[in-house]
Amino acid sequence: MEIAELGEFGLIRHLTEQIPLRNPETKHGVGDDCAVLEFEAGRQVLVTTDLLMEGVHFDLQYVPLKHLGYKSAMVNLSDIYAMNGRPRQMTVSMALSKRFSVEDLDAFYEGLRLACEAHGCDIVGGDTSSSLTGLAISITCIGDARPEDVVYRNGAHDTDLICVTGDLGAAYMGLQLLEREKSVYNQQLKEAKQRGEDLEKLPPFEPDFSGREYLLERQLKPEARKDIIEALAKAGIHPTAMMDVSDGLSSELHHICTQSHTGCRIYEDRLPLDYQTASLAEELNMNVTTCALNGGEDYELLFTVPLTQHDKVADIPGVKVIGHITKPELGLLLVCRDGSEMTLKAQGWNPLKKPL
Amino acid sequence: MEIAELGEFGLIRHLTEQIPLRNPETKHGVGDDCAVLEFEAGRQVLVTTDLLMEGVHFDLQYVPLKHLGYKSAMVNLSDIYAMNGRPRQMTVSMALSKRFSVEDLDAFYEGLRLACEAHGCDIVGGDTSSSLTGLAISITCIGDARPEDVVYRNGAHDTDLICVTGDLGAAYMGLQLLEREKSVYNQQLKEAKQRGEDLEKLPPFEPDFSGREYLLERQLKPEARKDIIEALAKAGIHPTAMMDVSDGLSSELHHICTQSHTGCRIYEDRLPLDYQTASLAEELNMNVTTCALNGGEDYELLFTVPLTQHDKVADIPGVKVIGHITKPELGLLLVCRDGSEMTLKAQGWNPLKKPL
Repeated sequence: MEIAELGEFGLIRHLTEQIPLRNPETKHGVGDDCAVLEFEAGRQVLVTTDLLMEGVHFDLQYVPLKHLGYKSAMVNLSDIYAMNGRPRQMTVSMALSKRFSVEDLDAFYEGLRLACEAHGCDIVGGDTSSSLTGLAISITCIGDARPEDVVYRNGAHDTDLICVTGDLGAAYMGLQLLEREKSVYNQQLKEAKQRGEDLEKLPPFEPDFSGREYLLERQLKPEARKDIIEALAKAGIHPTAMMDVSDGLSSELHHICTQSHTGCRIYEDRLPLDYQTASLAEELNMNVTTCALNGGEDYELLFTVPLTQHDKVADIPGVKVIGHITKPELGLLLVCRDGSEMTLKAQGWNPLKKPL
Repeated sequence: MEIAELGEFGLIRHLTEQIPLRNPETKHGVGDDCAVLEFEAGRQVLVTTDLLMEGVHFDLQYVPLKHLGYKSAMVNLSDIYAMNGRPRQMTVSMALSKRFSVEDLDAFYEGLRLACEAHGCDIVGGDTSSSLTGLAISITCIGDARPEDVVYRNGAHDTDLICVTGDLGAAYMGLQLLEREKSVYNQQLKEAKQRGEDLEKLPPFEPDFSGREYLLERQLKPEARKDIIEALAKAGIHPTAMMDVSDGLSSELHHICTQSHTGCRIYEDRLPLDYQTASLAEELNMNVTTCALNGGEDYELLFTVPLTQHDKVADIPGVKVIGHITKPELGLLLVCRDGSEMTLKAQGWNPLKKPL
């Protein structure tokens, strides 16, 4: 169905009428000038927002719209958990070019809905408009927390343990894989064109992802670490500093150390890596440590806890202690496998620095 | 200065470090995974968001970036007032193409800051990224209100008076004017090129806006009606329904009547028009009533009050009673100057219906 048949308000109704509002904090959702929320007395409100642009943040040649919806929600949910909060509401804005159908948007919303349901988040508003060129997606997520529970980036202290969840670098390797298969596909198309073949009649392209499914999933379907936030609360652990790993571990450590006025020391042999990450890095002749430090899009949690909580934190499945906080004059160091030390550089993804 | 020199985090710091946080509700602004807010007990939180795309919502050929910043903020502030709320915080996301300099963004932020200062709103976060094509701007505005003060679109009742503030159609006529002068300019450029002239040496183009300054201002620098919200509170008037006029009076009346399950009857000779609006409409051979009903971008307030409040509301400067709410079966009617009746159609701006 063409979007023009529904019009802006018809489309919004179509996309949102199936979405129930579940949270008592949501007093009014889609359909007025504003959404209306009411939080319990004494709770702080957390707000995060992301703007995702086609061709910069995602490539629709290999990202299905359902996955894109899921991931767009997830990256915002992850920011709420990174403050030790609980996601409550989300607004979703999209600017669409003419090539999208109502069915495309249904797929996108299906992904959004799955993510929001899993994380107890209501979709309460947004804006739907058109774009002369690519798809633009803007999501704002709102959460809440008790003031004493909120964790900032600036609370790390000398001797605190540095912890990271899950494993690192896999989403980045998943991207390499997708880009590689895209090149193969485009090359095949080009050659078929040169041979004058009917492109419609080409056999469907079968990308080769065998044995790499985990990397693909990490790139296309990241999961915000609600489970870790719950486990920390259960264990009675209040991190001194926390953030999520979106631009890369190295870049995030720079944020925490700068804002906390500390240095840090992490150990190469402690970096959590999946077997598939290491295996593809070797195949592509890439340094797996560099991928883990600078890959980005892991959406894992990076946090610090007092040294006294070592045993408690080490007991939580999926959490790994990778080093410790130091005095600021010691700088940010990586202790390599051979015992040598390297300064950590924030080489994470910088969308404004790259020539596009 | 090139944006790449600063990088994403340097740019954010540069743009936001001069912006003081003024509201006691703002506990933490830019610089962490989320902004942290804390509202007074018993207040509801209002959230609105807009996504503005270059070429669809604005044309940088004639919109200065400072004005664009100001207007981008204003359209969101207007939505908070439309709920009878008070703006408190704003997040600002931008996706930039390579042609923008740091000075361009300074101009945009200068406009944003002016609007936010005038309306007591803190800038607490956002996202800065790149775009392969045009500029994209996404703003989310957060406000608050006592629950008993919030006004929805769905509370209008039979016999309520329909009121509108300011005047209508002027922003639309301002757009016509800008588009006309743009055509003249582009035509002159084309002719100069055909004559083989050096375009750098052409005398600067002098657009002809004399006597039309009000129309330009309405298009380029709209003002959210904080003054009206304050005047209504002072007069002890609680509207039964309210919204802001962004897509056009006709479209907005449809929203209020649909959601309130009513009809309405408004009078052509009561529609507030500025002299410049009427004069340019005549010159361009356009029906001025159509412009007032469907022009859009007025950012005035449309609201309904019980009949008993006629004298109180009529005393507020800048508010005009244009008709009244009726039973739903009577439909949405415009009573023309000659006494004939026409059904009001929602012909307002529909970005998804227009072929772009």
